[in-house]
Amino acid sequence: MSKIFSDKVINRLTLYHCILTDFINKNIEYISSKQIAQLLHIDDSQVRKDINMLNNSGKSRVGYIVKELKIAIEKTLGFKKTKKALIIGAGNLGTAIANYGNFTDYGLKILAIFDNSPEKIGKIINGMEIQDIYELSAVTAKEDIDIAILTVPGKFAQSTADFLVNAHIKYIWNFTPVVLSVPDNVQVWNENLMGNFLQFTYNI
Amino acid sequence: MSKIFSDKVINRLTLYHCILTDFINKNIEYISSKQIAQLLHIDDSQVRKDINMLNNSGKSRVGYIVKELKIAIEKTLGFKKTKKALIIGAGNLGTAIANYGNFTDYGLKILAIFDNSPEKIGKIINGMEIQDIYELSAVTAKEDIDIAILTVPGKFAQSTADFLVNAHIKYIWNFTPVVLSVPDNVQVWNENLMGNFLQFTYNI
Repeated sequence: MSKIFSDKVINRLTLYHCILTDFINKNIEYISSKQIAQLLHIDDSQVRKDINMLNNSGKSRVGYIVKELKIAIEKTLGFKKTKKALIIGAGNLGTAIANYGNFTDYGLKILAIFDNSPEKIGKIINGMEIQDIYELSAVTAKEDIDIAILTVPGKFAQSTADFLVNAHIKYIWNFTPVVLSVPDNVQVWNENLMGNFLQFTYNI
Repeated sequence: MSKIFSDKVINRLTLYHCILTDFINKNIEYISSKQIAQLLHIDDSQVRKDINMLNNSGKSRVGYIVKELKIAIEKTLGFKKTKKALIIGAGNLGTAIANYGNFTDYGLKILAIFDNSPEKIGKIINGMEIQDIYELSAVTAKEDIDIAILTVPGKFAQSTADFLVNAHIKYIWNFTPVVLSVPDNVQVWNENLMGNFLQFTYNI
């Protein structure tokens, strides 16, 4: 658990995990590094190198044992340590994230969703009632919240972030296209869709 | 334009661009590398190094000229080369992307949005009528489409990807949590939200 994995390795391991989940759903018992490599259009040796870094004992002559490899990835990446999160902004993006089934498998537990629009407050998304943003402190006082997922429109991003900082939120997963100004003890992860798009399309 | 920028540099430049856009909206003329560094909680010297790689002449004693630096980033990263895209899946995520105002600024032009649900077809999102997925070939025959943005539910991801490949789509921006199997001449960019989440929360 003391190993430090690079961002790229973590990203690949998550993709391997997606593939393994798919194989389990299809009742396939074994998987080869070659099969994984082909699906991701990467090199076979890269897959083997990544997997060799895990505490994975489930190897056989016909390939890795799908279920054991999946567990090895989960243990290595700490999926099982649950992080509690709130979604701030019940627009389309907030709703999409609230409905994104996979998060719980990866240790992200969304406890509540907030908005300031009277038309939205009280509606139900994925079993959660949309709460008034001004009720947020009541939730943070009761529960140890790790992360606020920020999905408000860009023009409200900074003021909402200020509000979250005042509510003692220490990690903000920022889906707005705004760079937030926060104190040094607050960490922001910018889900920089445009940066990703530009990387992807750089050679088109 | 022949320079190759690493993914990390591209990502930072996009964030600088967000900051510059914000400064322009606030009518601020100059910006220092220190101001940028503080907002992103990164090192001052890193910002200067990145900016030195651009063709940016707009430097003065009081800092960079905001407007010129913004243009320099846009030129370097090729924002102005428009890429045409389709959104496949008019659920919450597809709708959020269709409504995401910033994309056009970055050269992403979304031409149409498709779904297979009779309840959705014909409705309007951000000025675009949701079209029947089976009308897709009619659009790809008329327009030179660069990218399909895939936002269908996971269980329909692979079959929809097969359909896109048959319609001669060459780039898929995959927002589903499924690793797609596609031919070698098709490129997939996995918007791996879970991988990003795990990187972000690795030390929480």
